[in-house]
Amino acid sequence: MERPRHFEDYVVGEVRKTSGRTITETDFVVHAGHTGDFFPHHMDAEFMKSSEFGQRIAHGTMTFAIGIGLTATQINPLAFTYGYERLRFPKPVFIGDTIHTELTIAGLDDDPKRPQYGRVTEEVRVLNQRGETVLACDHIYLAQRRG
Amino acid sequence: MERPRHFEDYVVGEVRKTSGRTITETDFVVHAGHTGDFFPHHMDAEFMKSSEFGQRIAHGTMTFAIGIGLTATQINPLAFTYGYERLRFPKPVFIGDTIHTELTIAGLDDDPKRPQYGRVTEEVRVLNQRGETVLACDHIYLAQRRG
Amino acid sequence: MERPRHFEDYVVGEVRKTSGRTITETDFVVHAGHTGDFFPHHMDAEFMKSSEFGQRIAHGTMTFAIGIGLTATQINPLAFTYGYERLRFPKPVFIGDTIHTELTIAGLDDDPKRPQYGRVTEEVRVLNQRGETVLACDHIYLAQRRG
Amino acid sequence: MERPRHFEDYVVGEVRKTSGRTITETDFVVHAGHTGDFFPHHMDAEFMKSSEFGQRIAHGTMTFAIGIGLTATQINPLAFTYGYERLRFPKPVFIGDTIHTELTIAGLDDDPKRPQYGRVTEEVRVLNQRGETVLACDHIYLAQRRG
Amino acid sequence: MERPRHFEDYVVGEVRKTSGRTITETDFVVHAGHTGDFFPHHMDAEFMKSSEFGQRIAHGTMTFAIGIGLTATQINPLAFTYGYERLRFPKPVFIGDTIHTELTIAGLDDDPKRPQYGRVTEEVRVLNQRGETVLACDHIYLAQRRG
Amino acid sequence: MERPRHFEDYVVGEVRKTSGRTITETDFVVHAGHTGDFFPHHMDAEFMKSSEFGQRIAHGTMTFAIGIGLTATQINPLAFTYGYERLRFPKPVFIGDTIHTELTIAGLDDDPKRPQYGRVTEEVRVLNQRGETVLACDHIYLAQRRG
Repeated sequence: MERPRHFEDYVVGEVRKTSGRTITETDFVVHAGHTGDFFPHHMDAEFMKSSEFGQRIAHGTMTFAIGIGLTATQINPLAFTYGYERLRFPKPVFIGDTIHTELTIAGLDDDPKRPQYGRVTEEVRVLNQRGETVLACDHIYLAQRRG
Repeated sequence: MERPRHFEDYVVGEVRKTSGRTITETDFVVHAGHTGDFFPHHMDAEFMKSSEFGQRIAHGTMTFAIGIGLTATQINPLAFTYGYERLRFPKPVFIGDTIHTELTIAGLDDDPKRPQYGRVTEEVRVLNQRGETVLACDHIYLAQRRG
Repeated sequence: MERPRHFEDYVVGEVRKTSGRTITETDFVVHAGHTGDFFPHHMDAEFMKSSEFGQRIAHGTMTFAIGIGLTATQINPLAFTYGYERLRFPKPVFIGDTIHTELTIAGLDDDPKRPQYGRVTEEVRVLNQRGETVLACDHIYLAQRRG
Repeated sequence: MERPRHFEDYVVGEVRKTSGRTITETDFVVHAGHTGDFFPHHMDAEFMKSSEFGQRIAHGTMTFAIGIGLTATQINPLAFTYGYERLRFPKPVFIGDTIHTELTIAGLDDDPKRPQYGRVTEEVRVLNQRGETVLACDHIYLAQRRG
Repeated sequence: MERPRHFEDYVVGEVRKTSGRTITETDFVVHAGHTGDFFPHHMDAEFMKSSEFGQRIAHGTMTFAIGIGLTATQINPLAFTYGYERLRFPKPVFIGDTIHTELTIAGLDDDPKRPQYGRVTEEVRVLNQRGETVLACDHIYLAQRRG
Repeated sequence: MERPRHFEDYVVGEVRKTSGRTITETDFVVHAGHTGDFFPHHMDAEFMKSSEFGQRIAHGTMTFAIGIGLTATQINPLAFTYGYERLRFPKPVFIGDTIHTELTIAGLDDDPKRPQYGRVTEEVRVLNQRGETVLACDHIYLAQRRG
């Protein structure tokens, strides 16, 4: 759904939580097929039995793609992505884990090159069903100023 | 293929280039279905006709997932990912573009917390068939020291 | 396989049963990705634990698409679909259920607007491995009269 | 997103429009693979060249599944689906068509068996980029009364 | 559909032709993702422009899997596959080609080890829309003898 | 990765082993959807409970496609496939089995028609986690002679 918001409409500390999604073995297989990364960490249950995890672990790129995808319920036509910072994977995601994403407005800054825009820093946290953070990053986007 | 490399084996300036992959309309549809992000920028050809791009553009998360996936031909069992920095999307990816990834060892540093590991900074560039960079980031990983 | 049949070849009470198909977690994930419907009823195992069902339930549109798909083993080149009536989902479909479809010719009528065709009403029932009906509807199609 | 609405909150004539989605060759192939319906009408471009349509046409079950899927942006936790009526496919959907769905509240009735619920009749229309209706049906659901 | 046939029911020279299927770019991408074979011959349009084919060519394993899949409309519960012989790919399959399969009973032999079965040799030919053979092999299966 | 090798570089007895891959229920569903083969042997868990296998078994074409796909980590630009011989499936593949492929150079012969090429016979064995061979065949390819 469209939700137009100017830079001035954002407030530091504002939080948005997505609905949850169970990460399935299907998602592992689809992601390997989509990206071409068939490393045994994600695809070989026998190999992973003797690893520190005891089982297959999700691709980091999948946790990122699905974690960000979960937030794609609101379109702000007045903003566009500048980039992502400090992308980390503090805990692995296993088959059967249920994740959701929490977004917190963490910073509102001038953009040095584009005076008609402001820079929004949104803290992204993907959490599993035990409340553990499995992905953290900052999403930086630029939102139009009111005028 | 496994290619075990210690921290001492990496050399600043070392370059690796992947093979290419044409990004298809199928990839757009698969990525939307995989992540749940059906924003019209990626999925609505009519809507995008009147945009600045004139056509659908790839999800940033797809360029990242496939761009990194292209590099998944060598496993270093002595290393693991720490994270990604400064992820940017300087140019859009369109249906029919052919991308490949270039990796350059850009930094070799001590890791403050793990003396038995060294920190490798690998510059990641995803380029299209016109030689334009469509994604840039730094991949940081930790590689075991020889001992 | 082609099986040409004129309107006069249909007999009220005629029954056709399809082979069975186990509905997998993969089907749930594929259907969500195909349609864009990632509602937690279908995708969030944690959320559904406390629901009346205790687990994820299939999309109604999937039960319909696969239930009808199971019947796609015979093409009658002399007939075409007019529509579906009274589509109902009396019981949920769970991951691991095995469904098949039963078709019964329930009515043969004149078509008010097309004298060279007759209207066939086919009762559609999708059943699970416990013999419970999980989908019911009437499929209406028009078949050419002999001459 | 959750949007709880009691039966009393619905108003006859209320309209909701979804965003658009371009139906791709990929969707045809995915739907055939998902349902097992590989009829030449959907899968054989050579066969369809000489048909009245001149090209492959979408599965009706796909237009239904995607057309309904497009509306899955709002969850009303106080309502559940009763069924669908008068499902029709007035025009074919071709590869490259862009569809969206329009929902109109068309009727608000008592439910004979469940006094604590009311019956909402929602007219569903799926339209292509030329404004032609490609699917029509009524979606009947039951919404809790305020009490 | 089930079609039980004893060894004695097969006749040398008997022919079966499947319906056709257009091989799409989607099939190329799905097959790469399913098998993990992302060789540039199948996935890199730029690389293939300067090849003898001028464009991407299908995986041989895909032509085999889909060519055999097209024949899966009749199940003989009295027979099982022994193997395949002389699998060849005389011509490439390109995106947009429409293929079908032709099966000819070419040999009926005793099975040295299983007196209650006979060995059926079925010539398999997959042809494109220009009538060219793109895959040839012999399918050997064992069918129960009548008595 | 490219690894150019002339006919003279091959040595009888040379062995290559791939990494492993767990065959999932997802792979069964994807393969059925990719090929159109929805036979109950692969798709109907209820039906297979009473079979000699007690559960669903993989499509032979899938074991072939994935077994060969696992070897697609080295491209020899000086060679091309001639065909496959004696393709057999000595044991079934079940959901959850982990397979890998072993390649052994078994023969090096002149090619009667192409003096500038030699014929390489590579024995292909796909094995499961119990060391049982689930697929065997010979892959024949032609490699350029040094000149």
